[in-house]
Amino acid sequence: MILLNGKETAQGILRELSASVASAGCRPPGLAVILAGEDPASQIYVRAKERACGEVGIVPVSFTLPAATPQSELLALIRDCNTRQDIDGILLQLPLPLGIEPETCLLAIDPGKDVDGFHPENVGRCSLGLPGFMPCTPAGVLELLRRYQLSPSGKKAVVVGRSNIVGKPLASLLYRQGVDATVTICHSKTQGLARECCEADFLFVAMGRPEIITADMVKEGVVVVDIGISRTADGLRGDVDFASVSLKARAITPVPGGAGPMTIAMLMQNTVQAWKKRMNI
Amino acid sequence: MILLNGKETAQGILRELSASVASAGCRPPGLAVILAGEDPASQIYVRAKERACGEVGIVPVSFTLPAATPQSELLALIRDCNTRQDIDGILLQLPLPLGIEPETCLLAIDPGKDVDGFHPENVGRCSLGLPGFMPCTPAGVLELLRRYQLSPSGKKAVVVGRSNIVGKPLASLLYRQGVDATVTICHSKTQGLARECCEADFLFVAMGRPEIITADMVKEGVVVVDIGISRTADGLRGDVDFASVSLKARAITPVPGGAGPMTIAMLMQNTVQAWKKRMNI
Repeated sequence: MILLNGKETAQGILRELSASVASAGCRPPGLAVILAGEDPASQIYVRAKERACGEVGIVPVSFTLPAATPQSELLALIRDCNTRQDIDGILLQLPLPLGIEPETCLLAIDPGKDVDGFHPENVGRCSLGLPGFMPCTPAGVLELLRRYQLSPSGKKAVVVGRSNIVGKPLASLLYRQGVDATVTICHSKTQGLARECCEADFLFVAMGRPEIITADMVKEGVVVVDIGISRTADGLRGDVDFASVSLKARAITPVPGGAGPMTIAMLMQNTVQAWKKRMNI
Repeated sequence: MILLNGKETAQGILRELSASVASAGCRPPGLAVILAGEDPASQIYVRAKERACGEVGIVPVSFTLPAATPQSELLALIRDCNTRQDIDGILLQLPLPLGIEPETCLLAIDPGKDVDGFHPENVGRCSLGLPGFMPCTPAGVLELLRRYQLSPSGKKAVVVGRSNIVGKPLASLLYRQGVDATVTICHSKTQGLARECCEADFLFVAMGRPEIITADMVKEGVVVVDIGISRTADGLRGDVDFASVSLKARAITPVPGGAGPMTIAMLMQNTVQAWKKRMNI
C-alpha cells in the first residue's frame, strides 16, 4: 500500500517554486491575504499560507479586518488590491463573517489575480479547458496523483461531494481531455452511495463527515483521496475510515498531511503563475 | 412509452414568450444573429432561429459575413453589438470559418448579452449555481423533462459526451442542488460504456455518432434523451437506435423533434430574459 504523502510532495513543490522565484532577478511575487473576522480555523489556515509564502519567497501582504467590517469596506480593499502593482494574487479567506455576501466579494476580485480560482470566469475557464487559475484543492489532488504516477485515464473515478470549491471542479478536471476518467458525482441526495463507491478505481471524498467511508464501501485495489477534515473528540479525522480502508487500498492519502498541504502548494503555484505573467517571465 | 415531444413543447414555450413580449409595452427584444461563412447546416440553423424570433416577437438583426472575413472585422462587429441599445442578445453561429478562433470571439461577447451561455463567465455561473445564461441545449433538455414531470432527483443519470456546449454543462445542471441526480459522465475514453449506460435511470447521449446506443445498452424503464443528430444516407439519425431502444424505454425523445427545437426555445427564452433585465421588466 502506497501512502500518498501530500506533506512531503507539497514541500518539494514549494522548493521548486522557491528556486524559480529566486532566479528571476526582479521584484518578488506579492500575495494579498485578507482575513475578516476571528474564525479560529481560518486563522490557522491563513498562518499556514503565510508560512508557505515565506518558504517560496512570496511577500504576503496581510489585511486583518474585524468581524463587524461593512461589506463596502471589504469591497474597497479588494478594489485597491486589484490595482496595486506589488500585488499579484488576492486570497480572500472563507468563510466571511455574517452579513457579507461571499459571491459579491469573490466577483469583485480581478480574475487575473484570483489565485484561489473561485471567480466565475476562472471556474468557466477550468470547465472549458481554457488557460486560467485552477481551484487549489482539485488541482493539488491531481498533482499529487501525477507525482505518484497514478493515472485515472479510462478508469472509473467517483467524487463524493458537490461543493463549488472541491467536488464540482474536481469532477470537471477528472473528465477533461488528457485526464480522461469516467466520473460519477455523488452527494447527499445520492441513493445507494455504497454501491457507487464500490465501482471506483479512484475514490475522492469531500463531504466533511468524519469516517463515513468504510472498508465495505470500496473495492480491493482502489486509490483513495480523502479531502474531508473534521475536528473530533479523538482529534482531526478525514471522511475515510483510514484504519480499515487502507487495508484494501492500493494507495491512500492520510489526514492530515494529504490533500491539505497540496492545496496550499497550489495556491503558491497560482501566485507564482500570476506574477510570472505580470513580469513577462 | 411516452414520446417526449420537443417540437410541441417548444411551440408552447414560444407562445408563452410571445405573450410576455406582446404585453410589455416597450420596444421589442433584439437578437443579433451573426453567420460567418457558408456552412449549409449553419444556414439551416440560423434560419430556424430567425423564424423562432418571428414567432416570439424578437427582432432578429442579421449579419452575414463571407468565409474570408478577417477575425478583426468579426471582433469589431461583436463590439458594436455589445454597445448597441437595440440589441439584447448576440448569437454567434458556430462553427466559425477556418482562421477565426472561436474562443477569442466568444470571449469578446458581453456576458450580459451572451444568450448562448458560451462565455466562460456564464459557464462558471452555471456551474456555481449563480444567476446567468444557461447554455441552451442542456437547459432545453431539463425543461423538456420538467414539463413531462420526469424528475431525475436522487436517480442515476448518465451523460455520454463531454463537449463544452452539451455534455459538460448538462452534467453540471443535473447534479446541482434542486435537480439532485447522481451523474456519471462518459466519453470516448470510457472503458465499458455499455455497462455504464445500463446503470442509467436517465440516459443523455450527445456523441454525434448515429445509432451507437442500442437496446442491449439500456435498462428497462429508462428515460432517454437523444441530443445527437447526424445526416446519414437514410436521413437524419440520432445517437440512439430509436426502433429498438424505444421498446425498453419509459420515455424517449425522437430525432428530429426532440432536443433540437428545445434548444431554439431556450435561446429565445434567454433573449427575452436579457431584454427584461435591460428594460427592468
